[in-house]
Amino acid sequence: MAILFKSAWDDAGEWTRCIQAEEPELEVRVWPEVGEAADIEFALVWEPPPGDLKRYPNLKAIFSLAAGVDHILGDPELPEGVPIVRMVDQSLTAQMSEYAIYHVLRYHRNMHLYESFQRERRWEQLPLHRAQDRRVGMLGIGVLGQDAGRKLQALGFDVLGWRRAARPIDGIETFHGPDGLTPFLNRTDILICLLPLTPATRGILNAGTFAALPEGAFVINMARGGHLVEEDLIGALGSGQPGSGHLAGATLDVFREEPLPPDHPFWRHPKITVTPHIASLTDARSGAQDIIDNIRRLRAGTPVRNLVDPEIGY
Amino acid sequence: MAILFKSAWDDAGEWTRCIQAEEPELEVRVWPEVGEAADIEFALVWEPPPGDLKRYPNLKAIFSLAAGVDHILGDPELPEGVPIVRMVDQSLTAQMSEYAIYHVLRYHRNMHLYESFQRERRWEQLPLHRAQDRRVGMLGIGVLGQDAGRKLQALGFDVLGWRRAARPIDGIETFHGPDGLTPFLNRTDILICLLPLTPATRGILNAGTFAALPEGAFVINMARGGHLVEEDLIGALGSGQPGSGHLAGATLDVFREEPLPPDHPFWRHPKITVTPHIASLTDARSGAQDIIDNIRRLRAGTPVRNLVDPEIGY
Repeated sequence: MAILFKSAWDDAGEWTRCIQAEEPELEVRVWPEVGEAADIEFALVWEPPPGDLKRYPNLKAIFSLAAGVDHILGDPELPEGVPIVRMVDQSLTAQMSEYAIYHVLRYHRNMHLYESFQRERRWEQLPLHRAQDRRVGMLGIGVLGQDAGRKLQALGFDVLGWRRAARPIDGIETFHGPDGLTPFLNRTDILICLLPLTPATRGILNAGTFAALPEGAFVINMARGGHLVEEDLIGALGSGQPGSGHLAGATLDVFREEPLPPDHPFWRHPKITVTPHIASLTDARSGAQDIIDNIRRLRAGTPVRNLVDPEIGY
Repeated sequence: MAILFKSAWDDAGEWTRCIQAEEPELEVRVWPEVGEAADIEFALVWEPPPGDLKRYPNLKAIFSLAAGVDHILGDPELPEGVPIVRMVDQSLTAQMSEYAIYHVLRYHRNMHLYESFQRERRWEQLPLHRAQDRRVGMLGIGVLGQDAGRKLQALGFDVLGWRRAARPIDGIETFHGPDGLTPFLNRTDILICLLPLTPATRGILNAGTFAALPEGAFVINMARGGHLVEEDLIGALGSGQPGSGHLAGATLDVFREEPLPPDHPFWRHPKITVTPHIASLTDARSGAQDIIDNIRRLRAGTPVRNLVDPEIGY
């Protein structure tokens, strides 16, 4: 039995070592050196080539190398009935929360402005706001959104959430469904997108969404490039001069095309912060433990953790 | 009865409103419009002119507008026997912790490097470290250091502390006294200075201290400019190119001379981040509540909170 590994971003050697440390019997085959297709029982993938996964007749589960599974569900020839498992890993969750907290504090404390003040050798103290007066809206409040939201609450921020389904969350005021979106946006000073990318959420960061945010709001997209209508963000930010647009700034970790092309206007926009898809990188050690645990559950017939519902897309 | 207000940085009008909202009977006199010196019962000051405070024969207490009191104790003609009270205020503590967490996360997540990557339109993912593998050393672990330290622990960081006196702190490994300093520094990847400025701590951020930190450590000074030997920092950072010096970077909020002079080399040093003394600004509303509470305690003869010991300097 073997597990197929395919990713252009993750270190195949490190993952092989970590998987075999947990389960020495499980052979790791690194794409494209697949060997006999019938040997492949499991696939651990990031952006698998469309049509590839149907080649393995004995495939029992497909594991995503990260929290999102849109890169798997987008395959028009995806084999039917094979369980898809997303990565939910403590270290991945912790990294996402670090990124969210860092960028919320950056806007909250005007650090993005002090960065440019230093370049101008300018000594000027800006007014301070209390965290409790800053409303942080988690667009998507599952495992990741709740962890970041609770840590932001511990720092004093006023945190609210929005999700697709009407399930309340202990201690965080949550809006839901299409009807809940506008009231949620109206009350959000700093919006953090942590949604899965599905047909229902594609393009959700658009002109209408931005217009529903209060004047001077900030947007942080750490989910998928497909959530953002790029032209609408440029429009909502205005010329980039302070005071010129409806939004005060945006931080983007994910893009329609990655790597972000060198001539893309986001790189040089004075109100946009670009990071190269680093909000979280799956840790091979804890990730491999998670996957092997789920493989044992599959074999024992006990419920698999973090199973994806292909109908709703996460 | 009246309270004297003197600060070049804080808004006299706002403080007057907030004090009178708490205690309408207390007249606020804004320096230099002091009126009859004998009326002055209390002084609320930031950097009072040396020799000024001895002019008030009925002075019952001196309140500092911030956590530090070095700007008061430095007065060679300070009236003897008048209690000095430092500002310990929830919003001030919360702000200091926000600043500390932001700058620890910035170095922990390489955000200072991604800032320059964006200017170069460079898409490159750097290796990620887990927070538990990052040792944050609080140089000074009183009210401020403990609040920041506990919040950093909640994010997973390995936090340790150093203080003058041998008093243990629940849940934070703490070193103390001159003998404890080197072992503490040897185990610190990110050093945060939150010490009061006293004769014993002046110049504590010097070449010997930096050499005791591991190669590649970071220093964050959010206490007083007098803690830092500026020339030694430049030496420890090397030429500013990555890999050239013993320290990887420094963030400075406080300076020997403030505002930092426009021709000072810190402004343009590639490994130094400058902020204009904004780690915390005392909030007039909660600050005034604190002061009035202490004035009532003084009048009632009950113990005053946050009293300074002039012998040890805080």
